[in-house]
Amino acid sequence: MPDAAVELIAVGTELLLGQLVDTNTVFIEQSLAEAGIDVRATHVVGDNRERIAAAIRGALERAEGAITTGGLGPTIDDLTKEAVCDALGLSVELYEPALRQMEEFFATVGRPMRPNNRKQAELPRGSLPLPNPNGTAPGFVAFAKDGRFVASMPGVPREMKPMLAERLVPFLRERFAVKSRIYTRVIHTINLGESEIDYRIADLFAASANPKIAVLSHDFRVDVKLTAKSDSSADADAMIAPLQIELERRLMGYVFGTDETTPAGAIHALLQARGLRIGLAESFTGGRLAAQLTSVPGSSTAFVGAVVAYANSVKIEQLGVRPETIEREGAVSQAAAQEMALGARLRLGADLALATTGIAGPEGGTPHKPIGSCWFALEDRDGVAGTWRFELRGDRAAITRRATTIGLGIIWRYLEGQR
Amino acid sequence: MPDAAVELIAVGTELLLGQLVDTNTVFIEQSLAEAGIDVRATHVVGDNRERIAAAIRGALERAEGAITTGGLGPTIDDLTKEAVCDALGLSVELYEPALRQMEEFFATVGRPMRPNNRKQAELPRGSLPLPNPNGTAPGFVAFAKDGRFVASMPGVPREMKPMLAERLVPFLRERFAVKSRIYTRVIHTINLGESEIDYRIADLFAASANPKIAVLSHDFRVDVKLTAKSDSSADADAMIAPLQIELERRLMGYVFGTDETTPAGAIHALLQARGLRIGLAESFTGGRLAAQLTSVPGSSTAFVGAVVAYANSVKIEQLGVRPETIEREGAVSQAAAQEMALGARLRLGADLALATTGIAGPEGGTPHKPIGSCWFALEDRDGVAGTWRFELRGDRAAITRRATTIGLGIIWRYLEGQR
Repeated sequence: MPDAAVELIAVGTELLLGQLVDTNTVFIEQSLAEAGIDVRATHVVGDNRERIAAAIRGALERAEGAITTGGLGPTIDDLTKEAVCDALGLSVELYEPALRQMEEFFATVGRPMRPNNRKQAELPRGSLPLPNPNGTAPGFVAFAKDGRFVASMPGVPREMKPMLAERLVPFLRERFAVKSRIYTRVIHTINLGESEIDYRIADLFAASANPKIAVLSHDFRVDVKLTAKSDSSADADAMIAPLQIELERRLMGYVFGTDETTPAGAIHALLQARGLRIGLAESFTGGRLAAQLTSVPGSSTAFVGAVVAYANSVKIEQLGVRPETIEREGAVSQAAAQEMALGARLRLGADLALATTGIAGPEGGTPHKPIGSCWFALEDRDGVAGTWRFELRGDRAAITRRATTIGLGIIWRYLEGQR
Repeated sequence: MPDAAVELIAVGTELLLGQLVDTNTVFIEQSLAEAGIDVRATHVVGDNRERIAAAIRGALERAEGAITTGGLGPTIDDLTKEAVCDALGLSVELYEPALRQMEEFFATVGRPMRPNNRKQAELPRGSLPLPNPNGTAPGFVAFAKDGRFVASMPGVPREMKPMLAERLVPFLRERFAVKSRIYTRVIHTINLGESEIDYRIADLFAASANPKIAVLSHDFRVDVKLTAKSDSSADADAMIAPLQIELERRLMGYVFGTDETTPAGAIHALLQARGLRIGLAESFTGGRLAAQLTSVPGSSTAFVGAVVAYANSVKIEQLGVRPETIEREGAVSQAAAQEMALGARLRLGADLALATTGIAGPEGGTPHKPIGSCWFALEDRDGVAGTWRFELRGDRAAITRRATTIGLGIIWRYLEGQR
């Protein structure tokens, strides 16, 4: 008997040309990893009946099950069902509920149903149907005589994802008698370097087994991910909690939230809790900080607005930066950042304002102020709450992206410190 | 003999858990498609010597060549070379140039070279080496007795990509005696629907063979891609040019550029050419239009700034919108958009200003103004150049993303029309 595992087969010639990226495979891998089901290998094959059938046969030599995505549509290019039948030596039979759903669908839209649509309601004989509430093609699990199986799902992600979660994963967990699953907790940090984090948690990292620790870095935002294998959510919480508390203690002052929390979401929650409204004066970040803060639903209650002051004339006229400051210190200077923040707070009527000014490149750098040089200033009702200087690396896109994260980190740390 | 094609095998257990996305495979697919080399199937297998060898053997039953990525490093998890030897019945031999490069590297960094590094300088006997200027592990092409081959490259994209382009693709083109390659031209349109484009070009689309036409849609930006198979760049240009001219004629007024051109880049070029400076008044787009316009290097010469006016008080005080307008018509109205645009143009000192106001959701919709309702207004030195109303679909992120594209399209069409 082959291994208690599955192999994944994505079907579609366009996937082999690099024109369409197959996002289904990674999604299924993640879902099955969380569900405690082993994926042994993955494959992509073109819309060719023999090659699909050969891939299925190969997979079932190594693993108990194969999962295909794609090729269940009504066109002549859609050959997955036929290939499954070839590989397992099965014929098809009509699956009445799918036919009825399809008839209703075509009656509703007032179009005639074609014979090739009827084909979509046929399944390999003896299959377990996987109903598709979001489309016309049902999925199915077809069985070989010895019990090995092929699960086939549509390639449209909107149809595949609920079918996987609601139908296929429960089937697979029962089939493989999986008791435990993987539970994760992600601790999000901001503005603390990966090497500093490694240094602070090296001993916990080295000793971790279940829960296991992983460190994932994205440009000044580092995630510490805990994964626990457990039979129940309550047990997993009990396993994760002490380690999470210890990690948060060691990373104190830099953890803005867990799991689905974003920096902008954490900022919005703190602003709301404290009844504060924020404004921005953005130069080289060019609206990216405003775009982040307004990505949160309901952000209009706590975000009043921003002045994107690219031209010096806008810094002077819309934010009240003094011409002498720009003349003497330059637009990328501590003084200019402070005056921008003050102007934004007063003119936008905010309790709090952050200003950014810097050199995004590729032009504009000098030996004294190279590309990537930047200043941030934060102003509250008591005056200057802080100024920060950085020299960021990378191209224009990387510099502005990193500066945006730094700006979010500054705002978050300020609000967190004020609690 | 198997087909004159290759199969791709990515090696790495972490790729099967969905934790690390394999971007190499799509990159290699695209490169080989352009080089005229057929990819028959792709696979991902874990770091397991037997399974890697089995995948290679399977691939060589169907195709003349297999290309592996990953598993060439110095650790005990790196087993690709051993698996290639197993699959082809080869032993290893030392590749002197790689050893010398490695010795130099370790001398430079002042660290001792370990025996497992020496292992990296060994290649399957009789291989064609693929030098790696960006890392220590060389790639190679190993041969079976009957001439079938396995090309192995490192998994680090920075090392793999130049090795592919400079070494492996030329080898494959010679091996498969490929004369022609694929040349592409992408025609970018904005603010014209996919179905309208389909309607206008249906006959050309149906008749296209070489060059072939493909239509790719991304939220109000539709790309028409021409791919020509040809022996030379000059021939390809001659094949593409007449069809490109005809397509651009039929899509006139909506084509903002070709190939690498972005909407913001096209706008910047037009502003520069005409000596105009633009400003923005953004409400529900929240800085996203400013972020787009400032993504272009040198944009400070033509973009003065933006007022992100989220709160009504900011619309009134920073843009001069009349309180009565907001009271009577609402902040999402034609009148408010016009006053925002006028205010932005005058106060930011711009020749041209676009204003956006709308309901991004998920809160704030009414029966009269549902979520997604929005107004755009464009103001130039002659007054109102135009106003536009849309009802956009989707969630908050989709609505703001679509509105940003629409805004770019409005600015571009205005500038294009003024030429």
